[in-house]
Amino acid sequence: MEQQMLVAAEVDSEQLKRCIEDCEHCHRVCLHAAMTHCLEQGGEYLEPPLFRVMLACAELCRTTADAMLAGYALYEEMCAVCARVCRDCAESCERVGELEECAEACRRCAESCVGITGGAGPRPIDEAAPPARPA
Amino acid sequence: MEQQMLVAAEVDSEQLKRCIEDCEHCHRVCLHAAMTHCLEQGGEYLEPPLFRVMLACAELCRTTADAMLAGYALYEEMCAVCARVCRDCAESCERVGELEECAEACRRCAESCVGITGGAGPRPIDEAAPPARPA
Amino acid sequence: MEQQMLVAAEVDSEQLKRCIEDCEHCHRVCLHAAMTHCLEQGGEYLEPPLFRVMLACAELCRTTADAMLAGYALYEEMCAVCARVCRDCAESCERVGELEECAEACRRCAESCVGITGGAGPRPIDEAAPPARPA
Amino acid sequence: MEQQMLVAAEVDSEQLKRCIEDCEHCHRVCLHAAMTHCLEQGGEYLEPPLFRVMLACAELCRTTADAMLAGYALYEEMCAVCARVCRDCAESCERVGELEECAEACRRCAESCVGITGGAGPRPIDEAAPPARPA
Repeated sequence: MEQQMLVAAEVDSEQLKRCIEDCEHCHRVCLHAAMTHCLEQGGEYLEPPLFRVMLACAELCRTTADAMLAGYALYEEMCAVCARVCRDCAESCERVGELEECAEACRRCAESCVGITGGAGPRPIDEAAPPARPA
Repeated sequence: MEQQMLVAAEVDSEQLKRCIEDCEHCHRVCLHAAMTHCLEQGGEYLEPPLFRVMLACAELCRTTADAMLAGYALYEEMCAVCARVCRDCAESCERVGELEECAEACRRCAESCVGITGGAGPRPIDEAAPPARPA
Repeated sequence: MEQQMLVAAEVDSEQLKRCIEDCEHCHRVCLHAAMTHCLEQGGEYLEPPLFRVMLACAELCRTTADAMLAGYALYEEMCAVCARVCRDCAESCERVGELEECAEACRRCAESCVGITGGAGPRPIDEAAPPARPA
Repeated sequence: MEQQMLVAAEVDSEQLKRCIEDCEHCHRVCLHAAMTHCLEQGGEYLEPPLFRVMLACAELCRTTADAMLAGYALYEEMCAVCARVCRDCAESCERVGELEECAEACRRCAESCVGITGGAGPRPIDEAAPPARPA
């Protein structure tokens, strides 16, 4: 796992680095579980709200991690939306069995993302843009 | 172009359909301009804030369009963030020459996205999830 | 629909422009059908091979379109793989009812992609890279 | 890093698990280097062929990792294309200085991807589809 560390050294802060890892982990776990466990088990695992939130969570975690890696100015706002979908996904996974790993990954990712936003949530639509790089 | 219409009939509202098209168009124009015009012209077109916001805009427009197509509950919040990055991108493109098509695509997409959100902006982090499908 | 044309004028050839449009259309139709029709109808529409190939097709069409838009050297090889998954998806959709629109979009996209590759298929792993831009 | 292992246990083979990790690592390193180091240093780091192959590599590694995670039938063919773009990217990075980490990540990812394909390269366009799940 020392390869992870090579990147970490370049990323601007320890908190950002941890959030990227948590988003990537959550993406991986939710995508894999939805497309293998849920699709093969069927039944309650394929109820549209559960299945959709798992894929939505996987997609948004990936996009949010990439926004941080690329230094996009919108990364804090992505983290705020990501935190919410992760919480929704965790709750949905906790309601059915056998998705504990997803629920745990989502809870951890939500916490990391809230840490990035300072708990503040996204700015109003007309507010000025944040600076272009993670500080 | 009749192929566009086949999809339109299935999407839940005219407004949503228009927003998906505007997001996809903005994605296409910004990605193409950044990776061809900007990269080949260099100079001010490769200033990090301009180039980054163009790629961020392309990426977010794509993700937002997909969230609407897939019926993800988070689509309204994605539209709110998308509207902001489109405005930032339009302003950046207007400051340099020859990116009028990007600026125009961004302005149109921002307007469509604001229409979807009702101008309200994203909900606070702890608020309950929206319903699972576009109404 | 005149907005499509603005981009078309910038893309390097009529064939490439048509292929980008066909990939984007196929992405849109397959993603929407899988996440709405299939997920809500259940039964044979959620058989893992069908559902997976529909999402795989949607994902690859998107990535292939973006490779052409961005001028990535690998675009011809992406088109070759995209043609195959589109054919697999078309066959799977034709075996069940009510997915005619997907099947048609996949057939059209496969044909466009084969046109881009000259029917040649991807180069062997050790062959030299193609030139960096669509000609 | 024990979180990585939780996923690993679910993935079907050690080789597949390693390839997913190598693709994700290569995605992360190339995207971050292109959008921070290259964009900020300018000059030879923004020559279109180098910059494009780095972003193409990042994108394809991500898509290939996701194809393996989701169990898409096309994953072997994606690995074949991914191996080639990783080699092209490694060569380009080695020609300029300060991108050793990218070059190394690309070499490792190419090797993993070739291992998945058995060194065979992608099948001809008209050949039948592979089975739907990683074995």
